[in-house]
Amino acid sequence: MSEQPISRFPVPELTDLPDDIREQILGVQESTGFVPNVFLTFAHRPDEFRAFFAYYDALMTRDGGLSKAEREMIVVATSAANHCLYCVVSHGALLRIFSKEPLLADQVATNYTKAPITDRQRAMLDFAMLIATDSHLASDDDFEALREQGFSDEDIWDIGAITALFALSNRMANLTAMQPNAEFYTMGRVPR
Amino acid sequence: MSEQPISRFPVPELTDLPDDIREQILGVQESTGFVPNVFLTFAHRPDEFRAFFAYYDALMTRDGGLSKAEREMIVVATSAANHCLYCVVSHGALLRIFSKEPLLADQVATNYTKAPITDRQRAMLDFAMLIATDSHLASDDDFEALREQGFSDEDIWDIGAITALFALSNRMANLTAMQPNAEFYTMGRVPR
Amino acid sequence: MSEQPISRFPVPELTDLPDDIREQILGVQESTGFVPNVFLTFAHRPDEFRAFFAYYDALMTRDGGLSKAEREMIVVATSAANHCLYCVVSHGALLRIFSKEPLLADQVATNYTKAPITDRQRAMLDFAMLIATDSHLASDDDFEALREQGFSDEDIWDIGAITALFALSNRMANLTAMQPNAEFYTMGRVPR
Amino acid sequence: MSEQPISRFPVPELTDLPDDIREQILGVQESTGFVPNVFLTFAHRPDEFRAFFAYYDALMTRDGGLSKAEREMIVVATSAANHCLYCVVSHGALLRIFSKEPLLADQVATNYTKAPITDRQRAMLDFAMLIATDSHLASDDDFEALREQGFSDEDIWDIGAITALFALSNRMANLTAMQPNAEFYTMGRVPR
Amino acid sequence: MSEQPISRFPVPELTDLPDDIREQILGVQESTGFVPNVFLTFAHRPDEFRAFFAYYDALMTRDGGLSKAEREMIVVATSAANHCLYCVVSHGALLRIFSKEPLLADQVATNYTKAPITDRQRAMLDFAMLIATDSHLASDDDFEALREQGFSDEDIWDIGAITALFALSNRMANLTAMQPNAEFYTMGRVPR
Amino acid sequence: MSEQPISRFPVPELTDLPDDIREQILGVQESTGFVPNVFLTFAHRPDEFRAFFAYYDALMTRDGGLSKAEREMIVVATSAANHCLYCVVSHGALLRIFSKEPLLADQVATNYTKAPITDRQRAMLDFAMLIATDSHLASDDDFEALREQGFSDEDIWDIGAITALFALSNRMANLTAMQPNAEFYTMGRVPR
Repeated sequence: MSEQPISRFPVPELTDLPDDIREQILGVQESTGFVPNVFLTFAHRPDEFRAFFAYYDALMTRDGGLSKAEREMIVVATSAANHCLYCVVSHGALLRIFSKEPLLADQVATNYTKAPITDRQRAMLDFAMLIATDSHLASDDDFEALREQGFSDEDIWDIGAITALFALSNRMANLTAMQPNAEFYTMGRVPR
Repeated sequence: MSEQPISRFPVPELTDLPDDIREQILGVQESTGFVPNVFLTFAHRPDEFRAFFAYYDALMTRDGGLSKAEREMIVVATSAANHCLYCVVSHGALLRIFSKEPLLADQVATNYTKAPITDRQRAMLDFAMLIATDSHLASDDDFEALREQGFSDEDIWDIGAITALFALSNRMANLTAMQPNAEFYTMGRVPR
Repeated sequence: MSEQPISRFPVPELTDLPDDIREQILGVQESTGFVPNVFLTFAHRPDEFRAFFAYYDALMTRDGGLSKAEREMIVVATSAANHCLYCVVSHGALLRIFSKEPLLADQVATNYTKAPITDRQRAMLDFAMLIATDSHLASDDDFEALREQGFSDEDIWDIGAITALFALSNRMANLTAMQPNAEFYTMGRVPR
Repeated sequence: MSEQPISRFPVPELTDLPDDIREQILGVQESTGFVPNVFLTFAHRPDEFRAFFAYYDALMTRDGGLSKAEREMIVVATSAANHCLYCVVSHGALLRIFSKEPLLADQVATNYTKAPITDRQRAMLDFAMLIATDSHLASDDDFEALREQGFSDEDIWDIGAITALFALSNRMANLTAMQPNAEFYTMGRVPR
Repeated sequence: MSEQPISRFPVPELTDLPDDIREQILGVQESTGFVPNVFLTFAHRPDEFRAFFAYYDALMTRDGGLSKAEREMIVVATSAANHCLYCVVSHGALLRIFSKEPLLADQVATNYTKAPITDRQRAMLDFAMLIATDSHLASDDDFEALREQGFSDEDIWDIGAITALFALSNRMANLTAMQPNAEFYTMGRVPR
Repeated sequence: MSEQPISRFPVPELTDLPDDIREQILGVQESTGFVPNVFLTFAHRPDEFRAFFAYYDALMTRDGGLSKAEREMIVVATSAANHCLYCVVSHGALLRIFSKEPLLADQVATNYTKAPITDRQRAMLDFAMLIATDSHLASDDDFEALREQGFSDEDIWDIGAITALFALSNRMANLTAMQPNAEFYTMGRVPR
């Protein structure tokens, strides 16, 4: 049971990277304390790295009707359905931190239908799961149900688009056998 | 059976768009003869528009071991599995054009396992479908099988990453109920 | 990418066929302009040929509450679910011709739930898909829902029986790897 | 728990039937001792009745490499997968009678993979189940595997075509909620 | 088609068994007339034998709102979904005997949704099937629906727990390839 | 997001329990430091409590070829497939403790096919998952594959029986909406 590599594909040295990517990675390291492996894995393809993180920032840091914790709930629930270890563990950490609920990530990952969330959040996750697994069935009735829970159409786009982005991200993580940093497994488990 | 709207979400006027996006769209219009609806649909969210098309260009126009027709085969086969009308119809058109095989798109969309393609292309599509539907099962044996067909590891990344990008794209098209332009349905059907 | 054979099984010469079958085939050729491959494939087994086309005529040319285009919608939607290339392509052509809607066949084949059809037609296709995939769950409530859309019980038999006949037909086409004639791919795509 | 009707649709009186159908039914009654409900159910639609039983006779009474018991095995295994009560019970009776194995029908219906059958019969049922559930995946390798078990190509057609016919028959029985005659449940259970 | 062994694992001689287990088996033989193979198969592991039959007695012979026939319906329906020959055949016999309905077991096993049972029993089986296949989705609404049919919460526990016990039992029977005694196939088929 | 109850069903007071059950629970509390909620949930039905824990002890504390960590791997992998929060979290804790691998439980729960385990353990989990989801397909070839990895037939029984017991346990936990004690979420996450 030796150490697993970060990725099935080559992981570049920081010194070999284009300046903008190296600086972005060093910035993350400074704020987080370590470099999440997703940055090193995607750095193998600088153009895809730039597009992926631009997309990520556009959706995950955007203002709107979804809280940070709710965005992470969407990621955790749909990534669990896709059996994506990297995303379940790393975004599980973010969910614990943003929600300040240390048990919530495991609850959402294993069975979100029984997690202690609001009816609004349940409707949000039901729709995210529909987009994750059967997006072609998304109907006007589904939109109406979300509106009844107070979601605007822009919020609905966000729910669907975050799910869509992690449909991509989960597949890249599974393709590359990307490993979560050990730090993520324990972050936010003990309330401070 | 009235005309269907392009998208469930607002579609901006060209004049209301940021300059870079408007110019990109006008460029496409000039080269293609019309504006594919995917540009208008994504323009509702300029940051996501930029990230999406940057990702698209990085993968679909990249040099490498996959031909243009082979990249389109991946899109058509996996988009059909996701029941994404926009991508099946528009990329079906591109597949007909790049392959110069007017029947191939319908064959790949309906049942790629019986399409008249090479063993190498069959292996490529089998792997793409695995990433599309069960990416967590992608194993070292699957990589080895692709290498035996002559694919490099960079080609394997391309196969997986194109599939991952259209996992996103299919979900966005289904979320927005994006309609293919009528032009796509007939492009490339008659050999020239 | 050489020419694919019509069928995995022997295809008889017209001169070797029983008179009634040869005459039926020549009649089709005269009216259609070519001999659809389904006639040549089934001609390998004259008794089954006769039974199949008798069944086909009984259901597809019968008077009743379903229009010709609606019957073809049922065939296209359920054949797509069964990944039957021959039926999707050839009956897609008939659907375009009968409906005079050149885009409708691809819309119904890829995702009938978002095709521009009436509520009545949507209910018809929902029931056809239930019979195609989970016929044992067809309940009295399903019958009632169809009656509310104006279908008579004889219409419901027709919907179910057309679906059942193409459950057979799709499996025979997939068994024999039956190829659609090239003509079908383009028929009805340009409104006249 | 009252008596269930034979069919959801009208069941004609013998006296109201076309002569050929009435005579066929009386013939069956004379040889079998009762009228199986499938005859009465299909008699609601004389043209479909004639086509169905012509198809049935063409496949089930045809000479060839499959024994009568083997044909019934195909029907029982695939009808169980389709949850078709009429076909499981009535053809289970025929399987018991033709095989002289009173336990075999229940074994094949519940889990044919552990039934006490030969390797050749197991290969036959594996292929029948493939045609029943995923016919589009039937490949040249599947044909080769059957040939290695001694099946001719005509036998393979028979296996596939019997499965295809009961794909139709199961759906008609489920559509009509057709009830098996009580006699079928016990026929052949006690070896004579 | 030789005789199949009772179990893939060793079946102990009665004389080699612990006294309590031998006496329990002899008691069953005296009351039933034969020793059901489940006793001999589990006797290979005396501690598991004792736990299994203690659990079985606690649920199947307990007083409560479910009749004996209803408990057997649960076993037959869920065991059929699990393709467990032993349980379908042996508990099918018990269902025929307790219900005095000689056709009911085959009806419930093949398609319980069309079996001639009460609405209450249908709701009971729907819930049992949910627990059998997707227990994580069991919701408060499902409990409410059962209460509306007159089930107490203790009855709901019984429905779920019987299903859970046979989830275990079906897997053990399939693991061991346990064969039903021939007697079970015919018991209760002829009303007395 | 209030505190969730331990169980949907009544949870008895320790003082109201039969002596043997109360003593067993107090013993667990003394050794573990808290009372796992599974004891309190099952205590609602003393006979089932006794049978369940007798079965559990017979399989989980039995000598044999499987290590304690391997038994917990089986529980975690199959319970994740069944979306059983209680078992994933509580047995995840035990897996971390017995394996001394603080990341292993999340890896096995999310995607055991990429967890850092031995080939032997992978074969063990593949078989456990087969029993969990499609036990009727367990074949002699599957047994042979396990023997080639060094498993005895008694080990194979253990793998299958542990899976079968947790098929029951997962369904009871989902039926009762049983909540894991908060302690389990963090146990064994920091190597000592």
